Amino acid sequence: MEKKYTYTLEIKVRDYECDAQGIVNNANYQHYFEYARHEFLEHAGCSFAEIRKLGIEPVVARIEIDYKNSLHGGELCQCKLNAKREGIKFIFYEDIYRVADNKLCSSAKVTTVCLKSGRPVRGDELAAKLGQYLTDDTATI
Amino acid sequence: MEKKYTYTLEIKVRDYECDAQGIVNNANYQHYFEYARHEFLEHAGCSFAEIRKLGIEPVVARIEIDYKNSLHGGELCQCKLNAKREGIKFIFYEDIYRVADNKLCSSAKVTTVCLKSGRPVRGDELAAKLGQYLTDDTATI
Amino acid sequence: MEKKYTYTLEIKVRDYECDAQGIVNNANYQHYFEYARHEFLEHAGCSFAEIRKLGIEPVVARIEIDYKNSLHGGELCQCKLNAKREGIKFIFYEDIYRVADNKLCSSAKVTTVCLKSGRPVRGDELAAKLGQYLTDDTATI
Amino acid sequence: MEKKYTYTLEIKVRDYECDAQGIVNNANYQHYFEYARHEFLEHAGCSFAEIRKLGIEPVVARIEIDYKNSLHGGELCQCKLNAKREGIKFIFYEDIYRVADNKLCSSAKVTTVCLKSGRPVRGDELAAKLGQYLTDDTATI
Repeated sequence: MEKKYTYTLEIKVRDYECDAQGIVNNANYQHYFEYARHEFLEHAGCSFAEIRKLGIEPVVARIEIDYKNSLHGGELCQCKLNAKREGIKFIFYEDIYRVADNKLCSSAKVTTVCLKSGRPVRGDELAAKLGQYLTDDTATI
Repeated sequence: MEKKYTYTLEIKVRDYECDAQGIVNNANYQHYFEYARHEFLEHAGCSFAEIRKLGIEPVVARIEIDYKNSLHGGELCQCKLNAKREGIKFIFYEDIYRVADNKLCSSAKVTTVCLKSGRPVRGDELAAKLGQYLTDDTATI
Repeated sequence: MEKKYTYTLEIKVRDYECDAQGIVNNANYQHYFEYARHEFLEHAGCSFAEIRKLGIEPVVARIEIDYKNSLHGGELCQCKLNAKREGIKFIFYEDIYRVADNKLCSSAKVTTVCLKSGRPVRGDELAAKLGQYLTDDTATI
Repeated sequence: MEKKYTYTLEIKVRDYECDAQGIVNNANYQHYFEYARHEFLEHAGCSFAEIRKLGIEPVVARIEIDYKNSLHGGELCQCKLNAKREGIKFIFYEDIYRVADNKLCSSAKVTTVCLKSGRPVRGDELAAKLGQYLTDDTATI
């Protein structure tokens, strides 16, 4: 059974994102994951800029990335994600697939928290906006 | 008791590494960690380019990064690391400290493997070169 | 009368491409310009990777960029370009417009040459492939 | 006779700054040039952050870069610069040399202006701070 995702973003690898090994540099996957989260937020009705205007500063507290297959210049991929809430954390599960062969290239678990004046807060405003887009804890992700 | 490290690299934050939040963008820490590993390899006697000339392609299989305190433009930091071998993996433990207040800003555990013709190998040539720089499994890291 | 272009690429600004000034960092426009050239080449029937497989290494010899209006995170823009041949040079004229207000944000003139074994060559194979996509010298660009 | 410069910054090429052609990606030279200008400003007594605190937003209006020799991963280079004032513009002339063979790799002329509330101003506060570091118009640069 195919895994279900809340949001999918198509990304085409740009040549300058590859390093001398001829593959996308590891750090650039983190850029893809961030880009997909921000596009997801906009899609869900609250862009990153709008969240910040609410006085909330979302920050990444921890990221875990598994690298499985390398992406090359010009390749098309899809970054698919699920988001859930866990206490004060917003956790994103993101998978990048190469379109050509549907191979999983990289997976990430990204733990984020909201800061207000530098202190962690629950981010209820954000949760309210994301509402239906947050995966239930009991769902398989 | 202060933690011991095998290698330390001083890095000064460049303004273009910061994003609109005014702090170093998360992905750039991964650049710092990679830069420190590559400088360490050169320091240990086998630069990344030399390893590749041996027909060995070191790749990152997994990275875990904890973000604790943000770095800002112009700040001086130190990336300190330990490396150990675990089966076919070479694992790097890297910590970035801000020099001004000695605060831990970010920690990473980076799991790398060596590929030959696309298949994982033990990387004994690399282990031989790193020799004394590899932390014993029994050491506290 | 509106300026005519051979190729148009739509690009959405990613938040990590902005710096602490809250606008796209100057160097990232160069990334956009490169990305548009490479997409144009693929569109014209010879991707950058394919050109390199012909033993030709296209390199930028000179770039001139005018910055007129700043782009911000999330904004949609279009990079439009014309290409012409001038002796051994392939010259690209590239303009980036913000979609929302059609304002010209940045213009570039990019002079490239083809190298074979490190020496400049005419790049006739490339010119043959680009054929109809090369603007006539007498055209207004 | 050797060219004279006001300021020199040593930079070591990081592997991730190279692209699939195995050389430093063109856009990254622009990062080096920016980094050198900002270090120069700090050296001259007014860091980029401090300038912005004065309510002045320095922006690049135009950049011209000539690429002469490619830099590779791990290579050491020096970015040398001169700065002069011309009307409301602050112009930087920057040259990057590879240390190993003293070859000129890239040259840039960077035209910057100061904005206050989005409008160009003379930036006299900045000029006052840079004082002795500004090259006289009559000097050879």
